[in-house]
Amino acid sequence: MTESDEVPGFELGIFTFGELTSDADGTPIPADRRLQEVLAWATTADRAGLDVFGVGEHHRPDFAISSPQVVLAAVAQATERIRLTSTVTVLSSADPVRTFEDFATLDLLSGGRAEITAGRGAYIESFPLFGQDLDRYDEYFEDRLDLLLRVRDENPVTWSGTTRPPLANAGVWPRPVQSKLPVWIAVGGTPESVERAGRLDLPLYLAILGAPERFAPLARLYRDTARAAGHTPGRIGVTSHVHVAKTSRAARDTFYPYYAGYIGQNMPRIGRLGRDAFDAWASPRGALFAGSPAEVVDKILWEHEILGHSRFLAQVGLGGLPLADTLSSIELLATEVLPEVRRSLATSTKQAVEAGVHRESFDSGARLLAAVSLNLKNSCVLENRVNR
Amino acid sequence: MTESDEVPGFELGIFTFGELTSDADGTPIPADRRLQEVLAWATTADRAGLDVFGVGEHHRPDFAISSPQVVLAAVAQATERIRLTSTVTVLSSADPVRTFEDFATLDLLSGGRAEITAGRGAYIESFPLFGQDLDRYDEYFEDRLDLLLRVRDENPVTWSGTTRPPLANAGVWPRPVQSKLPVWIAVGGTPESVERAGRLDLPLYLAILGAPERFAPLARLYRDTARAAGHTPGRIGVTSHVHVAKTSRAARDTFYPYYAGYIGQNMPRIGRLGRDAFDAWASPRGALFAGSPAEVVDKILWEHEILGHSRFLAQVGLGGLPLADTLSSIELLATEVLPEVRRSLATSTKQAVEAGVHRESFDSGARLLAAVSLNLKNSCVLENRVNR
Repeated sequence: MTESDEVPGFELGIFTFGELTSDADGTPIPADRRLQEVLAWATTADRAGLDVFGVGEHHRPDFAISSPQVVLAAVAQATERIRLTSTVTVLSSADPVRTFEDFATLDLLSGGRAEITAGRGAYIESFPLFGQDLDRYDEYFEDRLDLLLRVRDENPVTWSGTTRPPLANAGVWPRPVQSKLPVWIAVGGTPESVERAGRLDLPLYLAILGAPERFAPLARLYRDTARAAGHTPGRIGVTSHVHVAKTSRAARDTFYPYYAGYIGQNMPRIGRLGRDAFDAWASPRGALFAGSPAEVVDKILWEHEILGHSRFLAQVGLGGLPLADTLSSIELLATEVLPEVRRSLATSTKQAVEAGVHRESFDSGARLLAAVSLNLKNSCVLENRVNR
Repeated sequence: MTESDEVPGFELGIFTFGELTSDADGTPIPADRRLQEVLAWATTADRAGLDVFGVGEHHRPDFAISSPQVVLAAVAQATERIRLTSTVTVLSSADPVRTFEDFATLDLLSGGRAEITAGRGAYIESFPLFGQDLDRYDEYFEDRLDLLLRVRDENPVTWSGTTRPPLANAGVWPRPVQSKLPVWIAVGGTPESVERAGRLDLPLYLAILGAPERFAPLARLYRDTARAAGHTPGRIGVTSHVHVAKTSRAARDTFYPYYAGYIGQNMPRIGRLGRDAFDAWASPRGALFAGSPAEVVDKILWEHEILGHSRFLAQVGLGGLPLADTLSSIELLATEVLPEVRRSLATSTKQAVEAGVHRESFDSGARLLAAVSLNLKNSCVLENRVNR
């Protein structure tokens, strides 16, 4: 069993789409400079002790990254221990055999640090590019996810589906270091996608852009569906827009103009983001993490109470935020946020154990059990490490 | 104009397929160890001053590399100045839009060092894997090469073909650093493939496994076809199996058992390679470069006389040759072979210029003019550098 097969404790990571936000003059960030910044974010996160680094796939002029696996291979070479994932791979438009080959190669290059996050794609630009029919949006994803998992779990594999030629006793090479390359599913809020992940026993990312409370029923749906299918529910991750600075005031004042630019350019349907709306989003029950380390810790812990997640991925550097500010935010996530989140969860676990919390109490209050289970897993990992 | 758009002088590089040759007990090299060795070869070649590093694509259990672009991205991060190419990309089985996106990303990550070498594939294992009909072997390549070049040269692009869905005013992103991502064609000896490269004005690799003289007519065919299509003939590269050591004896005695293993496992049709046959292949007019630096220089210069090539790619580390021997061979290629080849070509150019060689003499003797042109280009590059 490789180290990465162990279930880890609460994890914190960062990710980016490599967007080429335009400055006030309308000049976009050059793609090569953006990729060098992405590498700097990754090496800082790795050195400072974050757990995961992700890059997402877009086939558009305003993004630097259409090939997460190629970017992640460079990141693999520049880092030592951080896990590497797509956020996301638009699996509907990909050939799952190629996707597996690419990420198996990344896994070999990185010593077993690769993961795939599969998504249907928030944008649809990949469909005309690869000659696909948008009316079959769901069918492509379902069919290709099925093949990806089969290729991961069996070798050689015999498969037939509706959106890709069949395979007859086909070997797919090379094989990864990890015995089972992790495949997560990312959802924006579609219940059917949540149920699919639960049914297939795959870990789930909730991409939280609206009110976090609205995602609690989805977390419950995921666990219920998993149990109904006979599985122990898998891990939940949360992804959010993040900027951390030493003080709440510094974080918001610095970030606001850049984030308003990001929203204007990447989410034009929202319209111009005023400072009042920004502050409301950044408030304790809003989806945006723009604040001091303490504020970010509090919001992660609150979300943990209602969602029971065990991984948080911060989308950083949004809106062309200067490199120094992004690096400082990453450092604070690693040195102040992550240790405090782990400490708090360990404490609440201890209290829960002392209060005699049982398995049954889970459904009435996710927080305590999730904390207990997290702590048990942490102890386990620790024990494994000590016993080596 | 970026530096890589300049036409360089004679170039020497190395490449590998990452084959997982089995040792005497039948145990293959683990894929992760092999990839780490490939990275060590690349960093040594880069530091020592070689010009090009390539990795090839196979979808088989006995090779570590099915995704050259993912491996090359890690190499990009580990190196400073060496150019990075696939050797080859099996374009018949690839989606050219993805291929372009991947190599454009590599180009951005490496500061403009990416190249694509397109081939039809010596093995055919990719055809059933991607649901392709072997009867359309040529059609796939022709159609997809056409799309790759269109995607490279136009953005957005409107295209239709017979083996891939059409594109209607489609943008392909990101764009590379180099204004024109180099696309070479690799051929094993098929005249139609040589003619295609000449007609399309693409540089050509001759993969020389048989008697080198047999490739002289192909080099002539390439240049004739190019001129007939109205082009100035492009560059020719030569690829060969190579091992260099301090002395001829050391090179051959060390290399023979490994190379015999390579031939036995990767070219079983040849049968068991005896020492006599090995020595014949390694003789001055044989295809194999196994010898001292002086012997390798002589053979490159002789091939240069009959082929007029300006790039030589050495396939290194064959047959599970130990890492130290491969690294030493790479060092010798960079420090003893390459400078001497360049020196000799410059000298013959000078003599040619003094003897009043004119443009017309090219067709009767490729060597002198190629040398002249090479020297002019070198002067040009030098001048550009000095003037900066």
